[in-house]
Amino acid sequence: MSEQNTGAQPGGSVPTRGRFPLLDRVAYPEDLRNLSVEQLKQLAEELRAETVDAVSTTGGHLGASLGVVELTVALHAVFDTPADRVIWDVGHQAYPHKILTGRRERIRTLRQPGGLSGFTRRCESEYDPFGAAHSSTSISAGLGMAVAHHLRAEHDPAYRERNVVAVIGDGSISAGMAYEAMNNASVAGPGAGRLIVVLNDNEMSIAPPVGAMSNYLSRLMSSRQFLGLRDLAGKVARRLPERLERTAKKADEYARGMITGGTLFEELGFYYVGPVDGHDLNQLVPILRNLRDADDKGPILLHILTEKGRGYRPAESAGDKYHAVAKFNVVTGEQKKAPPGPPSYTSVFSRELVRRAKQDDTIVAVTAAMPSGTGLDAFARACPDRFFDVGIAEQHAVTFAAGMATEGLRPFCAIYSTFLQRAYDQVMHDVVLQNLPVRFAIDRAGLVGADGATHAGAFDINYLGCLPGMTIMAPSDELELLHMTATACAFDAGPIALRYPRGNGLGLALPEAGEILEIGRGRIIREMGRQSGRETGGIAILSLGTRLAEVLKAADMLAAQGLAPTVADARFAKPLDTALIENLARNHAVLLTIEDGAEGGFGAYVMHHLARTGLLDTIRFRPMTLPDRFIDHNTQDAQYHQAGLDAPAIAACAMQALGVAASQQTA
Amino acid sequence: MSEQNTGAQPGGSVPTRGRFPLLDRVAYPEDLRNLSVEQLKQLAEELRAETVDAVSTTGGHLGASLGVVELTVALHAVFDTPADRVIWDVGHQAYPHKILTGRRERIRTLRQPGGLSGFTRRCESEYDPFGAAHSSTSISAGLGMAVAHHLRAEHDPAYRERNVVAVIGDGSISAGMAYEAMNNASVAGPGAGRLIVVLNDNEMSIAPPVGAMSNYLSRLMSSRQFLGLRDLAGKVARRLPERLERTAKKADEYARGMITGGTLFEELGFYYVGPVDGHDLNQLVPILRNLRDADDKGPILLHILTEKGRGYRPAESAGDKYHAVAKFNVVTGEQKKAPPGPPSYTSVFSRELVRRAKQDDTIVAVTAAMPSGTGLDAFARACPDRFFDVGIAEQHAVTFAAGMATEGLRPFCAIYSTFLQRAYDQVMHDVVLQNLPVRFAIDRAGLVGADGATHAGAFDINYLGCLPGMTIMAPSDELELLHMTATACAFDAGPIALRYPRGNGLGLALPEAGEILEIGRGRIIREMGRQSGRETGGIAILSLGTRLAEVLKAADMLAAQGLAPTVADARFAKPLDTALIENLARNHAVLLTIEDGAEGGFGAYVMHHLARTGLLDTIRFRPMTLPDRFIDHNTQDAQYHQAGLDAPAIAACAMQALGVAASQQTA
Repeated sequence: MSEQNTGAQPGGSVPTRGRFPLLDRVAYPEDLRNLSVEQLKQLAEELRAETVDAVSTTGGHLGASLGVVELTVALHAVFDTPADRVIWDVGHQAYPHKILTGRRERIRTLRQPGGLSGFTRRCESEYDPFGAAHSSTSISAGLGMAVAHHLRAEHDPAYRERNVVAVIGDGSISAGMAYEAMNNASVAGPGAGRLIVVLNDNEMSIAPPVGAMSNYLSRLMSSRQFLGLRDLAGKVARRLPERLERTAKKADEYARGMITGGTLFEELGFYYVGPVDGHDLNQLVPILRNLRDADDKGPILLHILTEKGRGYRPAESAGDKYHAVAKFNVVTGEQKKAPPGPPSYTSVFSRELVRRAKQDDTIVAVTAAMPSGTGLDAFARACPDRFFDVGIAEQHAVTFAAGMATEGLRPFCAIYSTFLQRAYDQVMHDVVLQNLPVRFAIDRAGLVGADGATHAGAFDINYLGCLPGMTIMAPSDELELLHMTATACAFDAGPIALRYPRGNGLGLALPEAGEILEIGRGRIIREMGRQSGRETGGIAILSLGTRLAEVLKAADMLAAQGLAPTVADARFAKPLDTALIENLARNHAVLLTIEDGAEGGFGAYVMHHLARTGLLDTIRFRPMTLPDRFIDHNTQDAQYHQAGLDAPAIAACAMQALGVAASQQTA
Repeated sequence: MSEQNTGAQPGGSVPTRGRFPLLDRVAYPEDLRNLSVEQLKQLAEELRAETVDAVSTTGGHLGASLGVVELTVALHAVFDTPADRVIWDVGHQAYPHKILTGRRERIRTLRQPGGLSGFTRRCESEYDPFGAAHSSTSISAGLGMAVAHHLRAEHDPAYRERNVVAVIGDGSISAGMAYEAMNNASVAGPGAGRLIVVLNDNEMSIAPPVGAMSNYLSRLMSSRQFLGLRDLAGKVARRLPERLERTAKKADEYARGMITGGTLFEELGFYYVGPVDGHDLNQLVPILRNLRDADDKGPILLHILTEKGRGYRPAESAGDKYHAVAKFNVVTGEQKKAPPGPPSYTSVFSRELVRRAKQDDTIVAVTAAMPSGTGLDAFARACPDRFFDVGIAEQHAVTFAAGMATEGLRPFCAIYSTFLQRAYDQVMHDVVLQNLPVRFAIDRAGLVGADGATHAGAFDINYLGCLPGMTIMAPSDELELLHMTATACAFDAGPIALRYPRGNGLGLALPEAGEILEIGRGRIIREMGRQSGRETGGIAILSLGTRLAEVLKAADMLAAQGLAPTVADARFAKPLDTALIENLARNHAVLLTIEDGAEGGFGAYVMHHLARTGLLDTIRFRPMTLPDRFIDHNTQDAQYHQAGLDAPAIAACAMQALGVAASQQTA
């Protein structure tokens, strides 16, 4: 145990201190490296219990973390972290890793404002060599590190090469990006030999995994028993240090005959080892040691089988293995229900889409491993033959939808704003350039709360709005989303996107069916009061999306000062309602636009139009957007306050613009 | 032969009419379906000669087209195109396809203004069911079509299911997107059974292919001879119509024993057939017929081996197999050299990067299958151990570079603007969010000429500029590019991009080494003349990128009218030179910005800044950008004229803005 590290951990803030004798002695990985395998097993049990206890108070991604408790312990016991790099793909399974790497003190701040991130982050710890949150990046990043180590060692004899371990799940390995990385690993040069990919196969990513790769992995598993330690020693014989080689050689030949699978990875140039029980430290520790100590390695793929939710009965028996949970009761596993509230945007979209699809058999729906998060699970139940979950494969999802659109179907691609970034080229090149009527249902637009900056939907207006012929809708409330979903169903003239936020609507009464909106037509919500700001020309606020609720609060604040503004809901970021915009510009002194997106989006398009018409010269134009910085995880409301997009900020912006006008007029 | 089609083809405009007796009788595929295999061979030879003759007058992608002449003939002979869908991945190998599908008349307009596209295009022909130009989209699109056919047939008994053929090269199949599609093909439902992927393996994409997949294909090839027809008949026995089954069954067993490869595709759920000599119509035609007529198919992968440049000796013997050629002499193969001119932007970047890399061994360079197009071939020669061609794998390229950056290297990712779209999420999530100093060398920014809208670099300012902490430089000439390359080498504070156009510089004298520029600092090029427009406040033009040359011409035009403007070069799209912008705004009545990018980019950022400072209220601001429409292939100059970004348009915009000002002042 390192005195220094132990000393650095004041005991008071960890409520479980005293309950976990071994864990209490391990603040950093160096504290566990002298433990025996039996002690590591006990440590793993304590670490599991600590993880459950912590997440019960914060909520978070529990299931994935419970599946890698033993792997986490084994990796830190065997490898010289942080000098050796361990990269957790996606990073949501890294809670036990955080506890073992100096962050137990703060683990109960997970996903809380100002607290630990729910993912790995470089700025959080030197034990997080690569930040993550989107899937399937770890092999590319790890390969880059391994190659870099080798190059640096070539130029500096004192530089010691390090091992790089990338831990990736079976769901994540289905993404094209992971394939690209594997395809390059064996040809990336000598440095790649220090890359070890641990394929963490739990047959369950967020939803059950899909695709041929998943079937392939199942066949690999079912076609044989777990390898015993002897077989595995044989399997890695080529790589073993000299002293072990002779005894292992015979076992190797035997094992090779037995092992008929793994060829796919071997065809891609990996040395395949596995499958191994990922919860058995008696196996994991010696295998990882052998892989670590091998000389002249090529890239290695270690295939381990784990169980999501392992060791916590409520998680093990749940359908989703407690993938992402709210706060819960540790004993019963009962999750704290959110107080009953209005329906979520997701559910309103889902309900209307299903209703329409029942009447229109050309409607099909595509998700990339997010059937539940996008609400398409309901579609899958209602229209199973028209539902396609392509796995973590956003690029394919979009072009697959484009192909269906060419044949007269009406495809919906339901992908979170942040994940649609993965398919940007496909949106541009395969859909928009060909003007194909693919519907993009973009959930989690704007700021998203506890998932933080990695999951924010801050850029979709920018990256979609610049594409000629794109139509982009953003509802101001759930009733509008109902209408826009209906509109997207009916719109066959080209690509169309509807972007809507995480969270619940306002609780509006919803009719049975949505109405079809006129494309590119906004609406006036409030007309400027007769007396309001007449002397200064008055204020107009043109809102895109759900910031409208804050705009209306701001309007009340302004009205209280005799400056009741005109409020309009743009509905469309593209095409613009040019008549509405010109009217607002002509009849007011100040025009604000507001959107929950970055600079260069809706407000910029309005500005471009006003400049073209000359109206920009006659109005005080103030575009309000997300600020040009990443916003950390927090509540959505707090994030929008930080972003300067809440009612007080809106009112202040309007008054400042108007104040300047007034002062100039009097001058 | 269809009278109707033959009649639709007036002979006058085809200079080779009369030289190719069979081809003269084939205007559309239906005209060749009754030809014997021997006649098809002759047709293929004529088609090859016609392709060579046509491309000799236009330039274009010759090598790939020559490699698929026999395949083109066979596909149209066997399949009922256009009802059966044939999708050419990338589409640059589709010249023979165009000639056979009603476009021989126009084939000599290929890539010319107003002429045929150099790629497949839905709007050009019903025989082009999916437009292409970026690689690796065909399997996804084809799977979408096949699934759509099946769904439509389910709901409409009169609807006949069609075959879908996706032809994809060995280079393109290394992209993650192709893998995602293959991973989904076998699980996408019953419709996928009508999908036939033809893997056109010529061991040569643009550059020699890289990666484990390429090695794997080579091993597949070298480990055995071509399958004879009998073996192949056996291989497809399971799928054969009843009558052939018995005789073929024995051969099948034999063949299966012989064939040890193909497992990678079989693990992914494809029925693998091959390899087959892709130039032998005696094999291609019966195999394709068998695959077409099979019932109850799963997705099929037919692996053919072809030779790029086949049948035209100058192409066969060239290193790049005439991948992309200028106009050339048919007899000698000699390509028409471009008149000697100033160095290209690409070469100026390349030269400075190599010079710096020789002094700084932390500089590494990554390309995605474009060593020559990006100028990194010179880097590869100078620093081979620091050069990485990852193949068509932009996603991996970016995150691989990010991994290297975490370990203290200085990676350059040299990727065309349009192809960087493939890695947008990696740029955002793996590089920018972690503030890693990856250098993006973005060639082909702006409009690109003959490659048209699919290759235009119109959106990179938008999709990169919205990312917090990104730095974006755009040189106004090749001397500036020299400096910016040096600046990117030296800049370690975060991600940085330099975007520069296709084509040649201005012919400026270039010093030995570039200078390091101050980040976010623009420069004044011309100060407004003392007398110029004083009475109206004067004009300032702030230019980003190489439009500066046209701005200076426009300035001369304005000066001739006594309105000589201030001209500034922004150098940086981000961060803005706020001091420069505020100065321009304070000291002029009109401020123009100009950029070769879409609305919502640089001009919008300037506008946002001016609005924040209140200066937007005091100036007539006119942002000039690419218009909100796709611009077809043409010369770059003509494209910029169409886009309204040439000198007369700039001068007109300035005068119009000023004219409004003048008339208002007198009012």
